[in-house]
Amino acid sequence: MAPLRESSGDPVLPDPPQGPLHVARARASFPWKELALFWEGEDTLRFKKAIFSALENDPLFAHPRGSRLSVEKYQELNFLRCKRVFEYDFLPVGDMLDSLPRVLALIECLGMYDWSLAVKFFLHVLTFGSAIYSSGSERHLKYLPKIFSLEIFGCFALTEVSHGSNTKGIRTTAHYDPSTQEFIIHSPDFEAAKFWVGNMGKTATHAVVFAQLYTPGGQCHGLHPFLVQIRDPKTLLPMPGVMVGDIGKKLGQNGLDNGFAMFHKVRIPRQDLLNRSGDVTPEGAYVTHVKDVGQRFSESLGSLSSGRVAIVGMSVVNLKLAVSIALRFSATRRQFGPTDKEEVPVLQYPMQQWRLLPYLAAAYALDHFFKSLFLDLGELQQGLLGKDRSVRQAELGREIHALSSAGKPLASWTAQRGIQECREACGGHGYLAMNRLGDLRDDNDPNCTYEGDNSVLLQQTSRYLLGLLARRGPGGARIESPLKTVDFLDGYADILGRRFEGSSPEDLLDSSGGQKLTLWPVTQELERQPSCQRWRVLGLLLDPRQLRGFGRVPHRPASPRTGTAPPVLAVPLAAYEWLVCYLLRESHQKLSREKRSGKSDFEAINDCQVYHCRPLALAFLELTVVRRFHEHTHQPRVPPPLRAVLRRLSALYALWSLSQHTALLYRGGYFSGERAGKVLESAILALCAQLKDDAVALVDVIAPPDFILDSPIGRADGELYKNLWTAVLQENKVLERASWWAEFAVNKPVIGSLKPKL
Amino acid sequence: MAPLRESSGDPVLPDPPQGPLHVARARASFPWKELALFWEGEDTLRFKKAIFSALENDPLFAHPRGSRLSVEKYQELNFLRCKRVFEYDFLPVGDMLDSLPRVLALIECLGMYDWSLAVKFFLHVLTFGSAIYSSGSERHLKYLPKIFSLEIFGCFALTEVSHGSNTKGIRTTAHYDPSTQEFIIHSPDFEAAKFWVGNMGKTATHAVVFAQLYTPGGQCHGLHPFLVQIRDPKTLLPMPGVMVGDIGKKLGQNGLDNGFAMFHKVRIPRQDLLNRSGDVTPEGAYVTHVKDVGQRFSESLGSLSSGRVAIVGMSVVNLKLAVSIALRFSATRRQFGPTDKEEVPVLQYPMQQWRLLPYLAAAYALDHFFKSLFLDLGELQQGLLGKDRSVRQAELGREIHALSSAGKPLASWTAQRGIQECREACGGHGYLAMNRLGDLRDDNDPNCTYEGDNSVLLQQTSRYLLGLLARRGPGGARIESPLKTVDFLDGYADILGRRFEGSSPEDLLDSSGGQKLTLWPVTQELERQPSCQRWRVLGLLLDPRQLRGFGRVPHRPASPRTGTAPPVLAVPLAAYEWLVCYLLRESHQKLSREKRSGKSDFEAINDCQVYHCRPLALAFLELTVVRRFHEHTHQPRVPPPLRAVLRRLSALYALWSLSQHTALLYRGGYFSGERAGKVLESAILALCAQLKDDAVALVDVIAPPDFILDSPIGRADGELYKNLWTAVLQENKVLERASWWAEFAVNKPVIGSLKPKL
Repeated sequence: MAPLRESSGDPVLPDPPQGPLHVARARASFPWKELALFWEGEDTLRFKKAIFSALENDPLFAHPRGSRLSVEKYQELNFLRCKRVFEYDFLPVGDMLDSLPRVLALIECLGMYDWSLAVKFFLHVLTFGSAIYSSGSERHLKYLPKIFSLEIFGCFALTEVSHGSNTKGIRTTAHYDPSTQEFIIHSPDFEAAKFWVGNMGKTATHAVVFAQLYTPGGQCHGLHPFLVQIRDPKTLLPMPGVMVGDIGKKLGQNGLDNGFAMFHKVRIPRQDLLNRSGDVTPEGAYVTHVKDVGQRFSESLGSLSSGRVAIVGMSVVNLKLAVSIALRFSATRRQFGPTDKEEVPVLQYPMQQWRLLPYLAAAYALDHFFKSLFLDLGELQQGLLGKDRSVRQAELGREIHALSSAGKPLASWTAQRGIQECREACGGHGYLAMNRLGDLRDDNDPNCTYEGDNSVLLQQTSRYLLGLLARRGPGGARIESPLKTVDFLDGYADILGRRFEGSSPEDLLDSSGGQKLTLWPVTQELERQPSCQRWRVLGLLLDPRQLRGFGRVPHRPASPRTGTAPPVLAVPLAAYEWLVCYLLRESHQKLSREKRSGKSDFEAINDCQVYHCRPLALAFLELTVVRRFHEHTHQPRVPPPLRAVLRRLSALYALWSLSQHTALLYRGGYFSGERAGKVLESAILALCAQLKDDAVALVDVIAPPDFILDSPIGRADGELYKNLWTAVLQENKVLERASWWAEFAVNKPVIGSLKPKL
Repeated sequence: MAPLRESSGDPVLPDPPQGPLHVARARASFPWKELALFWEGEDTLRFKKAIFSALENDPLFAHPRGSRLSVEKYQELNFLRCKRVFEYDFLPVGDMLDSLPRVLALIECLGMYDWSLAVKFFLHVLTFGSAIYSSGSERHLKYLPKIFSLEIFGCFALTEVSHGSNTKGIRTTAHYDPSTQEFIIHSPDFEAAKFWVGNMGKTATHAVVFAQLYTPGGQCHGLHPFLVQIRDPKTLLPMPGVMVGDIGKKLGQNGLDNGFAMFHKVRIPRQDLLNRSGDVTPEGAYVTHVKDVGQRFSESLGSLSSGRVAIVGMSVVNLKLAVSIALRFSATRRQFGPTDKEEVPVLQYPMQQWRLLPYLAAAYALDHFFKSLFLDLGELQQGLLGKDRSVRQAELGREIHALSSAGKPLASWTAQRGIQECREACGGHGYLAMNRLGDLRDDNDPNCTYEGDNSVLLQQTSRYLLGLLARRGPGGARIESPLKTVDFLDGYADILGRRFEGSSPEDLLDSSGGQKLTLWPVTQELERQPSCQRWRVLGLLLDPRQLRGFGRVPHRPASPRTGTAPPVLAVPLAAYEWLVCYLLRESHQKLSREKRSGKSDFEAINDCQVYHCRPLALAFLELTVVRRFHEHTHQPRVPPPLRAVLRRLSALYALWSLSQHTALLYRGGYFSGERAGKVLESAILALCAQLKDDAVALVDVIAPPDFILDSPIGRADGELYKNLWTAVLQENKVLERASWWAEFAVNKPVIGSLKPKL
């Protein structure tokens, strides 16, 4: 492969620096640069390199990390960096719609640097900007250039102190006054103060405020968005009647100024109602093309759905950074060994592999899922802009809503758990703030909460799936969807009949010659053989061509070339399809029973969440991620040197995810006997062992440059201790005596002088 | 119950303030003050109250929380508070050994206030102090008064930059020089610098330093502790040859100054070798009463084991605080409801109950386990002090080592996951730093790492269990231990034959009259009945007297008084015993196979960890926690009004923990068919529903006063929003314009002025 070069002549993918990680890299089974090119594409690689280089060469972006500054200093620095991003103008707004991969790359690059910066920038440009664009009309277009020139700074104010998830309960009001043709924006009490609004704390001059719209006579028309000026752009002082401030320190993302606002009868012009779904005439009559209040509500909240997709991407970025740090650490940190003299890198331990490699696989699988979902979302938004009112467009909207409503929980939880595992896997050094795992955990954490609490959001997905089943009914319509994620449900009844192994005599014959098929002896055989040979045999099992037959391999391992079984589903996909159907049936039956017992819908649905609808939604999303990654890694255009490693990643993510549902696989009868569970475990461990030598190269593909990764124990040269020690000694006053030394040395306590009477 | 009063006349257990939580409290099934008295005992309640009151009335202990200060300021404040604790002298050192419950209470009270303070205090007094006391000899007793008068300040320096878990790999050296009768303490390079040492960063004047002892001629006698002066107590400046400093910001506990030290040929008097396990004569001869290097090593590290027990307690405290905050929030936060008008407290949702109540039960179960283990440890230490060399004493040491080595992982992980769940269950408000869940997570996190990485530590416990099995062999000795935690293993083979339901005709008859016993119809019946009645039936199932028969209840639920079945094990205990035996057999077989295949012991053991030894150690510890809590809650001295609620807590913790192993229960054949898994789930949900009305009162028992809990959303009055809003407005500069306002208002960017060539 000829080296890609920047316009400066520098390579886009420079060789990693020499150092202790060289040994680990040399063991990789594949050329990492080729994977980088396949994974990202040339344009994206160049684009990311340009952004990273700009930040690295600009002293404004020099660290220390924000979490080690005061909140005030951090917010200032973050604003200045945000402004600088406008000066760089990496991706002009006009180009955004034409180049979705570059939008993704920009989010990823800024986020890898610091989510406070990325969120500040995108809340203003995308969330605020597109709320005006998509909820407003021609009369609001004048605001757009002001956004992109930083004449105004925006925020999106939906959540209130006492209402987050239940947006219908929002209580800010907007009463129309025809005498002045103004709306009066008002917060009835502090529980209705807008709260948590990003950029509102110190920066925003304008807010898209959601309020209950009342027309003269007192009729309420539901929640509508209004553009409200909250500060004077010339002074950043609040506008009359607006009490606005910062909500205080958060667990993370403290460069971002999250704020609150209370409105005391603040008057805004009638025209500042963002009137796409409903408008008020100068005289005070309410007009809308949308008949149903619920539908209007959904339309006005439409701009929220892309937020969830973005959070999938944010979570993936955090997971990539965390596994990069932890795996480079694990490949260089040595502890214990076969003798007291010889210590081995901790990545050599099966336990460490099992703790980390599934999360590496998850980073790849979820990254691919995110990109594919982002493209799906692009298709949806093009339809919306083109006012596509087709059935397909509506179905696409519902499907993407279901995917993003479970995708955000799956991705943010996977990242949160993965970061914690990485933190622990780096031991004490992982607990040192400079190594960044704490910041990653703290910055990722709100992904589990905002844009819909994960647990609440999952209900959207299970409701979608239950709805499909209900619509189908006996002899009903075929189940299919634009993105085909649910098409398999059409085989619901058949799928429920599947088993991990044959249950009738016919099933015990395979197409390669009528041998009796059973896995148990193989497993026993495996466990009896020396490890090298065992891996080879398991390798056959795990070869994607063989994986189809997982659970049905011949008694004695045959050559991989033997037999030409008809193409059947890969084992984890087959298992996941059964699992989703099983949980769907269980959820449906449970919900019906609850309703028949006389419960209200509200109560019945709530009583079905924990062990039914919640796992249903997650399993469906896992299946979708597994399927998309499986298809991506098995397409013919995958370069041959990359096939083995990508398919192993795919298998590991799939089997590891599936193994979290083993109890259900047994309970529902898909698995039976000890062998099934044991083979699953053996396969996961075998994949970990196969991937351990590729881990460092796989990290090189997804890790940003050292400057951006910003973790002494995660640097590309692997000089773990030198880098750590250098960073420790560069801290402020590290060797200096404490300023309060005399409090110890001179002012001695009188022991017990304050002893309370006990 | 007559109200307990302080000497001031104030009640020891004041009534909670009036407020929105009053409604929730009124629904409790038991008197919370009686539970507090039963749970803590009168002396402890008084003692805790005195400590809490002293802190609350002392302005030095006024907040804000340390995590919102600069590290330097926080460390200063923390030192001043530590000094003040000496002035309070709540528990004179002489009384500590006589009053273990008060030691526990002091750790808990200081830790509930702030772990940085508690850890600073106890590292000095207990860890440093007892290392000198128990590793040294008469010649070192002179240091003890200096510790308790704060003349010197101590730290315990074992870990190095490149060696934590593998303490044998430590490389600091101590060469004896007979010409001056000194040891020369030396760090060969920066990888051997002492690192992570609490109190070393800025405060400590003296360190117990572990180093490899060399006598003239170059013979190494292994790791020994030395008392090394690192700073001048009169100036807090470092001693010659000592490079000592702070390692920098950590994810939490930043009031504590963790430090590093490199020694450049630092000379210390011969007498400062802590010589309990080995000494050097003035001429340079090594003398020891312990023959084996390994045994000497174990003895010199003996003081570490109590650290692990303490960490169990620290984790429990963190979990108590977190569930207190999250449950009070959940009982007052309303979101959604059966109609748009009426919103219900989120604790009414089964999902929220299931997320939080098992952690409440875990807080109680692990609290009891911690206290009991602490008393066991006290017994062990009394034996050590009395130089008890009996077999029982040695067995007790091994058993406590096994319990603490898995107890620390179980408790710290349960707390870490529980805190994260609490954080998420409080939504955005949980992400606000002032509500403390972030600090709890950050301060708890190192519990998973120090005093032995959790994953590594678990190997100690599985090794102990496998060793018992090996010693027994065919026809070998009876398995029993001083604390009886492993005695059940004597029935290993029989236990492995147990099943969750009868598998032979005989098993299908119970003692109450030969009815056919099967659970499936009951479950179906349950699901068909309206909820109130269903709870009643499940109540029978869950009644501890009935729980014994769980899985074997008659077809039609009988009166709880019917029949007098012989006392058999409660269901979760029986299941756990089977599970531990199953995992023990699997681990043993796997290890034997690995060894037979030609692997070294090192390799074989590593290859057995993930799916064998690790779950074995955890399941054994869970069984022990479940058994002790079960026995505690079922003893006759439990006051009758408390029995129901305590037994529900016991059942919930047990079944919830067990449900994490459902896959293994199925795989090994203990469970079969759908019913077993479903009944387990139904029971967990039913217990959650039963406990939800007791949750707030259960929290009142374990939560400290508001001042100590220090969380606006967790205050006892339940005035969620008022408390939150007050706290937000009291933050620094909350409504003020940002100091850098002109950077937005005046200095406008030129968009694209820095655009890189892409």
